[in-house]
Amino acid sequence: MNNTYIRVSLPAVCFVWQIAMVILFGVFIRYDEESDEKGWNEFKRSHNITSNIENDFYFRYPSFQDVHVMIFVGFGFLMTFLKRYSFGGVGFNFLIAAFGLQWALLMQGWFHSLNPATGKITIGIESLINADFCCAGSLIAYGALLGKVSPVQTMVLTLFGVTLFAVEEYIILDLLHCRDAGGSMVIHTFGGYYGLAISWVLYRPNLNLSKRLHGSVYHSDVFAMIGTLFLWMFWPSFNSAITNHGAGQHRTVINTYLSLASCVLTTFAISSMGQKKGKLDMVHVQNASLAAGVAMGTSAEFMITPYGSIIVGFCCGIISTFGYLYVTPFLEKRLKLQDTCGIHNLHAVPGMLGGFVGAIVAAAATEDIYGKEGLVETFGLTGKFQNRTMSTQGAYQAAGTCVAIAFGLVGGVCVGFILRFPLWGDAADDFCFDDEAYWEVRLH
Amino acid sequence: MNNTYIRVSLPAVCFVWQIAMVILFGVFIRYDEESDEKGWNEFKRSHNITSNIENDFYFRYPSFQDVHVMIFVGFGFLMTFLKRYSFGGVGFNFLIAAFGLQWALLMQGWFHSLNPATGKITIGIESLINADFCCAGSLIAYGALLGKVSPVQTMVLTLFGVTLFAVEEYIILDLLHCRDAGGSMVIHTFGGYYGLAISWVLYRPNLNLSKRLHGSVYHSDVFAMIGTLFLWMFWPSFNSAITNHGAGQHRTVINTYLSLASCVLTTFAISSMGQKKGKLDMVHVQNASLAAGVAMGTSAEFMITPYGSIIVGFCCGIISTFGYLYVTPFLEKRLKLQDTCGIHNLHAVPGMLGGFVGAIVAAAATEDIYGKEGLVETFGLTGKFQNRTMSTQGAYQAAGTCVAIAFGLVGGVCVGFILRFPLWGDAADDFCFDDEAYWEVRLH
Amino acid sequence: MNNTYIRVSLPAVCFVWQIAMVILFGVFIRYDEESDEKGWNEFKRSHNITSNIENDFYFRYPSFQDVHVMIFVGFGFLMTFLKRYSFGGVGFNFLIAAFGLQWALLMQGWFHSLNPATGKITIGIESLINADFCCAGSLIAYGALLGKVSPVQTMVLTLFGVTLFAVEEYIILDLLHCRDAGGSMVIHTFGGYYGLAISWVLYRPNLNLSKRLHGSVYHSDVFAMIGTLFLWMFWPSFNSAITNHGAGQHRTVINTYLSLASCVLTTFAISSMGQKKGKLDMVHVQNASLAAGVAMGTSAEFMITPYGSIIVGFCCGIISTFGYLYVTPFLEKRLKLQDTCGIHNLHAVPGMLGGFVGAIVAAAATEDIYGKEGLVETFGLTGKFQNRTMSTQGAYQAAGTCVAIAFGLVGGVCVGFILRFPLWGDAADDFCFDDEAYWEVRLH
Repeated sequence: MNNTYIRVSLPAVCFVWQIAMVILFGVFIRYDEESDEKGWNEFKRSHNITSNIENDFYFRYPSFQDVHVMIFVGFGFLMTFLKRYSFGGVGFNFLIAAFGLQWALLMQGWFHSLNPATGKITIGIESLINADFCCAGSLIAYGALLGKVSPVQTMVLTLFGVTLFAVEEYIILDLLHCRDAGGSMVIHTFGGYYGLAISWVLYRPNLNLSKRLHGSVYHSDVFAMIGTLFLWMFWPSFNSAITNHGAGQHRTVINTYLSLASCVLTTFAISSMGQKKGKLDMVHVQNASLAAGVAMGTSAEFMITPYGSIIVGFCCGIISTFGYLYVTPFLEKRLKLQDTCGIHNLHAVPGMLGGFVGAIVAAAATEDIYGKEGLVETFGLTGKFQNRTMSTQGAYQAAGTCVAIAFGLVGGVCVGFILRFPLWGDAADDFCFDDEAYWEVRLH
Repeated sequence: MNNTYIRVSLPAVCFVWQIAMVILFGVFIRYDEESDEKGWNEFKRSHNITSNIENDFYFRYPSFQDVHVMIFVGFGFLMTFLKRYSFGGVGFNFLIAAFGLQWALLMQGWFHSLNPATGKITIGIESLINADFCCAGSLIAYGALLGKVSPVQTMVLTLFGVTLFAVEEYIILDLLHCRDAGGSMVIHTFGGYYGLAISWVLYRPNLNLSKRLHGSVYHSDVFAMIGTLFLWMFWPSFNSAITNHGAGQHRTVINTYLSLASCVLTTFAISSMGQKKGKLDMVHVQNASLAAGVAMGTSAEFMITPYGSIIVGFCCGIISTFGYLYVTPFLEKRLKLQDTCGIHNLHAVPGMLGGFVGAIVAAAATEDIYGKEGLVETFGLTGKFQNRTMSTQGAYQAAGTCVAIAFGLVGGVCVGFILRFPLWGDAADDFCFDDEAYWEVRLH
Repeated sequence: MNNTYIRVSLPAVCFVWQIAMVILFGVFIRYDEESDEKGWNEFKRSHNITSNIENDFYFRYPSFQDVHVMIFVGFGFLMTFLKRYSFGGVGFNFLIAAFGLQWALLMQGWFHSLNPATGKITIGIESLINADFCCAGSLIAYGALLGKVSPVQTMVLTLFGVTLFAVEEYIILDLLHCRDAGGSMVIHTFGGYYGLAISWVLYRPNLNLSKRLHGSVYHSDVFAMIGTLFLWMFWPSFNSAITNHGAGQHRTVINTYLSLASCVLTTFAISSMGQKKGKLDMVHVQNASLAAGVAMGTSAEFMITPYGSIIVGFCCGIISTFGYLYVTPFLEKRLKLQDTCGIHNLHAVPGMLGGFVGAIVAAAATEDIYGKEGLVETFGLTGKFQNRTMSTQGAYQAAGTCVAIAFGLVGGVCVGFILRFPLWGDAADDFCFDDEAYWEVRLH
């Protein structure tokens, strides 16, 4: 039986890494010109801005808070569905995200906003959104491992997850110059395959010893619906949080909203068809209804049209629910891949799909639809990218998706082997999915 | 015993209707000029707008997200209060709203924003808010039927509910030119009477066979409080979501906020008085404390004054709690009207009251209070309505309320008869309020 | 055995006080110039404003709604953790806040925005935020008394709590001219000591008779996490809701966000270290992870720097968790102080700490960091305060913290004695922490 004693390792990891954060933030992180008291006054003068409402804060803060809710309540409560692992679901989600966002500010800062003159990273509201996004990658991966890893392992997978994320994001967004505002590629595809690869390496042949706890109970399914609904409702904010001001954010919201609505209907349809008596399954409603948000991450800011969005949602509900019905059991039996939350069906496949949908919609973009100015702005075709044609852009978008898959798989296998060292305090096969391992539990 | 087998009917309805949505959206729905990439750039030029912050998105998006939460979490969790119908409460609420909002965009679009030149409907953030509002009507009706109808029936009642809603809304807002930003009339009065009429037609004489499940249990009452509180907190956003920019939205929030606070105190008071030992009843706290939001739907945007708002809330708490204590049992016994959530007391009566309060406040409006410009803007007295006096406006407001009642009652009776066809898979009388009918339930 | 019969007293208090509100609002409260229809049109003309987006509503409304969620869902659900007092936790929280915010609008209005010419108080969105803040003081106090007081007592403690709050706030913010946008001093320090003092006076020597109910159960701990997370996520909005437009709100959000993230890691660390087997305790995660938000209330709007914020969070997680592990049991045993929610560790101490951190950061402020203009704006050094040096400002900030403690302790002792009168319907020692006392409870 493994030893779940973490009284030394967890505090050590938390303290050492948090002290490292203090030092690194002290050396590198400063306010940007829109949050610095002096900087903003100078910015207003130099940009001839007369009203404080022009501060980026007012364009992005409502979306930021929605994203924040998705990360902590959305992901957190979605993972409370197990009958005796609700503490671990919502609690370790909290821990991962709280650490991950700090590390993300540094990693993303080094790659994207390090001022070479001063050696400082400046942060503002958009940085906070990106940090939350970056955590999402590791939280998705945690979904595959829910109930099978120790809190120390979650910290390790987050440390590497955020690091890998920042690198692949730099490659995809900066080098390949893809557009991926809602992160179909950089967040969901990467996070999904990262988690699946780790889970594959950490395969537990005797996991059925914990079978009694590997499922939901009536009230835990209702708790999980809190997570589902906050994710579902706020996904338009997720996809639009960092898109272009004005029509860009506006359109992204409309597209995501429509796609998600459509996805719900096909999810209910397939869920009912998949059971002998036509009964619906909460697992599908909780998860597959969200797949459309994932799949619209890249293309929601494009002119995909309202009906295009609905078609994407339509397909995602079908594919994702099929995944829960048939693919997850298949993966477990044949590929020895244990995926607690079914992130394969909610993040990996819809994310990949979203990457390719984005490639197609980008390739189909014309000046006629976007206007000359709009096309340049939407795809950021300035500087050295100004001569890129739209079909080239589409090809790069597709390549970006492949990069995300590759990073997820290779990174996940490596991290998986690190997590197999017998020093992280993970539970024995017959003690998985049980909060008793890491929490003081009061059942009566 | 009825047959709750829905493996054919539910998927069929979901697929066929969703495919219809794809086609109709393809034919009719386009981005409006503030969400279209090219359109917004042209709009800015032609209106001499220099900043993207003038996009309607930034005026309405925070309110939209609050409304969205009310529809999915608010209504959804309010309906989890039954001990074994929480899945059906939050799950079918999800299904209704996801379908309803798509159909609403079409129905409301045809009536309100069809461009006769192009034959297209253009949508933006305000359309999404209106679509959510339109769903609310059908969700209210579902409240009366909770636990007694099949998911297929909920789809049918939504199809007709949204259709009826769009027509009565067109009559009330466009033809009668009433103001009803928060929907006391068009949403709550209509939705309430629509649901009551359906429930009356679907009367089940032997419903007491399901009595064991017709009530709450400790934790389901706490779940329902999630719904209550999100509805209560965000009602200021609901009522202000589509009111005039600037002082209009600002004032609507203040009025709704005050009215709701006042309503809580009288709800607690009457709830305690209504029980022999003075104990409070969760049903009252969950529902009656919201009645003020319903009743302020029309008048919150007017200059009703802060104390006027408090008085409305004061009365609503009393009336609504009395309704739960005495009227609902009376309706069930004498009028054979089974109203699971008590929408009579939370929507029908407060909505009607709100319609008449709105009429009075409108009739009392003067240039002295609103200013010449403000009066015209608040009541939209331009074009062919520019010579309407305020007492005439008040009379039209009152007439609008009557139209909403009539549409609800007549429409509800017709739809009720459609729902009585024995092909929708509704449960037998002894199998109501039970999630086992339509869901895979894991109790242990 | 005490008598928990409240059928007369609760309705009487609710009705009489609510009628008083109607009258006082009628006499005193009017819309301010940004919510009044005529006033806003005149304001736009006189201030040469061309766009409605300049209305303060659009700067503050998203934050207001987040604060509103914290008050009702955050505080409310945080107090559902007891196994059989969830109704009382979330329900009486609702009652307190609904009454308190009305009374706060009056009290704060008399002290801060009474127009001496007209004798009227004018209210706008910022007044609503302040009213919500004012309720927070009484809700914190209720945390210490949870399960031990009757609803009538909660109303009484709110009446006095709001009154005392308005006076100390006037002294601290207006007379001493301290800055305290997020209320470390005026809200948390005051509310914490106010509640502790009341609880000390109401000491129940035989409270262990209710020991069977004095604890959580699995699902009630999950419910409490809803409260925790909404408080945690929205604390950046709480601290920034009334700070200066532009960089002020922007920076406050960044500081609070970072501090809270850091606090989570040290909370987990100490929680694990504090238990023999290294198991985590939900009580710590639910509460101590929030202490950083409390402690940043004063200084988050200053240029405390990102790493400064992280350091504050680092320390707070440690201090607060230690408090739960060792100080609360000590206080109960030695000082006869029963503190149900541990507000000593979450509000009193972190609040006091936050007051002193604010004093230090204020004293360290220079023109070099803030700019000349920024320094004046951030600390409001205009009018008779224009010559105040920063070290003087620091001294006043520290003095303000002491005023808050004094008001809390003295006020709390006085109110405690009032609450000891044997006429409020509080439960006997063996009937505490039990919803049966005041609610109709359905357990099956």
